[in-house]
Amino acid sequence: MFDPVAKLQEFIRHPSVSADSRFRAGMQGAQEFISGLLGSIGFEVEVVRTDLHPIVLAHRGGDPRWPHVVIYGHYDVQPADPLELWRTPAFEPTIIGNRIYGRGAADNKGPLLTNVAAVAQALEEDPALPLRITFLIEGEEEMGSPSFPKFLERYADRLRQADFVFLSDTALPNPDQVVLTCGLRGLALFDVHLTGAKGDLHSGLHGGVLRNPIQALAEILATLHTPEGRVNVPGFYDDVLDVHPWEREELRRLGTDERAYAEFLGIDTFYTTPGFNPFESSRFQPTLEFNGIGGGYQGAGTKTVIPSKAFAKISCRLVPNQRPERIKKLVMDTIRARVPKGIRLEFVDQHQGDPYVVVPPGRSNTPPDQSPVLARAFQATEQAVREVWGRAPLYLREGGSVPIISDIKRVTGLDSVMMGLFLPEDNLHAPNESFNLDVMRKGTETTRRMLRALAGRA
Amino acid sequence: MFDPVAKLQEFIRHPSVSADSRFRAGMQGAQEFISGLLGSIGFEVEVVRTDLHPIVLAHRGGDPRWPHVVIYGHYDVQPADPLELWRTPAFEPTIIGNRIYGRGAADNKGPLLTNVAAVAQALEEDPALPLRITFLIEGEEEMGSPSFPKFLERYADRLRQADFVFLSDTALPNPDQVVLTCGLRGLALFDVHLTGAKGDLHSGLHGGVLRNPIQALAEILATLHTPEGRVNVPGFYDDVLDVHPWEREELRRLGTDERAYAEFLGIDTFYTTPGFNPFESSRFQPTLEFNGIGGGYQGAGTKTVIPSKAFAKISCRLVPNQRPERIKKLVMDTIRARVPKGIRLEFVDQHQGDPYVVVPPGRSNTPPDQSPVLARAFQATEQAVREVWGRAPLYLREGGSVPIISDIKRVTGLDSVMMGLFLPEDNLHAPNESFNLDVMRKGTETTRRMLRALAGRA
Repeated sequence: MFDPVAKLQEFIRHPSVSADSRFRAGMQGAQEFISGLLGSIGFEVEVVRTDLHPIVLAHRGGDPRWPHVVIYGHYDVQPADPLELWRTPAFEPTIIGNRIYGRGAADNKGPLLTNVAAVAQALEEDPALPLRITFLIEGEEEMGSPSFPKFLERYADRLRQADFVFLSDTALPNPDQVVLTCGLRGLALFDVHLTGAKGDLHSGLHGGVLRNPIQALAEILATLHTPEGRVNVPGFYDDVLDVHPWEREELRRLGTDERAYAEFLGIDTFYTTPGFNPFESSRFQPTLEFNGIGGGYQGAGTKTVIPSKAFAKISCRLVPNQRPERIKKLVMDTIRARVPKGIRLEFVDQHQGDPYVVVPPGRSNTPPDQSPVLARAFQATEQAVREVWGRAPLYLREGGSVPIISDIKRVTGLDSVMMGLFLPEDNLHAPNESFNLDVMRKGTETTRRMLRALAGRA
Repeated sequence: MFDPVAKLQEFIRHPSVSADSRFRAGMQGAQEFISGLLGSIGFEVEVVRTDLHPIVLAHRGGDPRWPHVVIYGHYDVQPADPLELWRTPAFEPTIIGNRIYGRGAADNKGPLLTNVAAVAQALEEDPALPLRITFLIEGEEEMGSPSFPKFLERYADRLRQADFVFLSDTALPNPDQVVLTCGLRGLALFDVHLTGAKGDLHSGLHGGVLRNPIQALAEILATLHTPEGRVNVPGFYDDVLDVHPWEREELRRLGTDERAYAEFLGIDTFYTTPGFNPFESSRFQPTLEFNGIGGGYQGAGTKTVIPSKAFAKISCRLVPNQRPERIKKLVMDTIRARVPKGIRLEFVDQHQGDPYVVVPPGRSNTPPDQSPVLARAFQATEQAVREVWGRAPLYLREGGSVPIISDIKRVTGLDSVMMGLFLPEDNLHAPNESFNLDVMRKGTETTRRMLRALAGRA
């Protein structure tokens, strides 16, 4: 049996930034690493070429009557910039106390290796375990999985033969409480570009004559929220799914602490959708967020220009049953209608993803036709969590997005059991990302027990 | 007599970007070039050290009864970025047709060398010319002349012995019409920095919980103008000088063409202070302009963060009798009052400069105590312009700023005669800056005749 922490260090050392072509070697290294590891524990590995980064498909077959789980993960990571804010080098894994630091440690290399280690242990102790397992590990999650839909269409028939998907790419609220995520927000992303004059102009000679695109951009962006915190786009909330009472109840059991959360974020005031506390707002409500803005001179000192161009990067997080195409159209139409004279508008469309919801067995809104293996998977996971962590998991929707989960559901009909393993303090998508090694150990044991229970060996 | 165009090429080749310490060698090269040139035509050159870039003071003395002109210029230039938009290298002077391209060609190396060439010619043809001349050439104009006030205090007694200042660092409306600039706008510049959470956050996990500093910035900036185009800061217009009828009349004589101006700018709609046409608005009215904005992710693709920080660079152009200190305080107070909860505000103060106005002889508002040499200088310049260009100059206030002109007036009492030599199409402060060599030739002849007339030799 391999050493999971040593393997995680090796995995992090491959700088697999999918969105930046300068990291091609790192992408290839990470893909070959994970393919090799799965091969070494007896899986039949297929590297599926795509237009961009390959998908690793690794299979352990068996009797068609055995349950069949697809374990999802991704080997790519977010860009590491701003590099100067890292206290240890982003791609040199560093263990300090019970944490391992490095880009991708928590998203998703650590949680993925947790599940690989659990499978390796389960098969080592019981080589005849009556369970079919397929690893599906992509390399484009952090850039919106552009190749995934085509892959899904091609492999839909094979994937439909499985029973459900299991993954760890969601969050734990604290190191003692497991959450089984039963909802994810969707995404709709695009950039707004405004142009005024045909070139940058001297602000003395021409100031007072024309509309500055930064001013126009500020004026447009400022209209997109109400002072109270709702998105000010007609129709934006039309399709938002109601929250069921058991969902609010699970959240209350979480024992959320607003003061501690505010302190963690470093803010003194929350700004939520009216009628929702911060924990509800990020899970049950959509957002329209500005991820970046730029225009004109940004260096030290001054440069007295009226810039020709300004832009903003916008992302909406969507909840079930909002559709990204419709939301993009609503927001773009709203912006278009608010562009002042003298300013030209262009949109650059980025990626998008559907929101997702799955209801665990025995809830007021559990679908009557829920698959029996899915229900068993939820029960096996809940039981393993109780044994290893000493308390039941919570079933919560989460604010993040894993767009391929809803793609898989739509194309193959498979639902997902999502066992969160990263913590709020893990700094995902930010400098000094890290992963808690105690969580890794307990997560491995939980997944191992879940797999055995699913195979009827518990 | 030297070749002015060859000398200008040599001058441009020194990349003298004062604001960027990587160009230290270029600054020194430009300073030594101009010092050497003035020495070579018989001036006694003093290089005055400052805290940053030296000031070149070059003197031709004589009988104390001779008129004494101070000729001002600057040897530093704006940064050349964005370099990729230059069609010829910024610091390799390139002559195409009747234009010379290069950073600083028009601002201020070309116009400065025009006046140096005129002095050289005048002295070559009449070595005993009864005129005292002092060149005052600084190296910090493009960064707000931080060392100039201290220099002025130190040299005030010497400068007070002169009669007036002559300079070419303002604009011509077209190649056939000279303008003697009799007013300049002042400047008040500062940066606004907003901070939300203590670090960048994952927009999925935390989106919908806190106020994004980009949103706060947009909402604040959007309040700073009325839809009609006035600055929306209480008290901003309190001290604005009234426009005299002769000023509007001069501007009408300019034969301004709004359609051509809009085409030059590449816009289809003007946005001016209400009640002022574009030509009046930039000359007679103040502005509040956004020179730059930044925050969050600005690269290709997407990065779904809620940024911790966002900033904007603000500059106000001021007209007589607005004071920069007061305007800065008004705008900062207004912004401070509009910062929402959950966002922290910091200002970074940049430079500033007073507006300036001088009224030529014989106008309704000419001061009764105007200096006789100043009046003669205006008359001599007007006569030279009539002879060389075939029509009288226009006396106009201008939208740009040369803050040291009002500093000189305040400290030494000297007024300035400003003969514009750069054209709107010269692309000052922008890529592909150039200078018109026909204007250079005619400008040299004009200044030469003005100097002779002033010396009583016409």
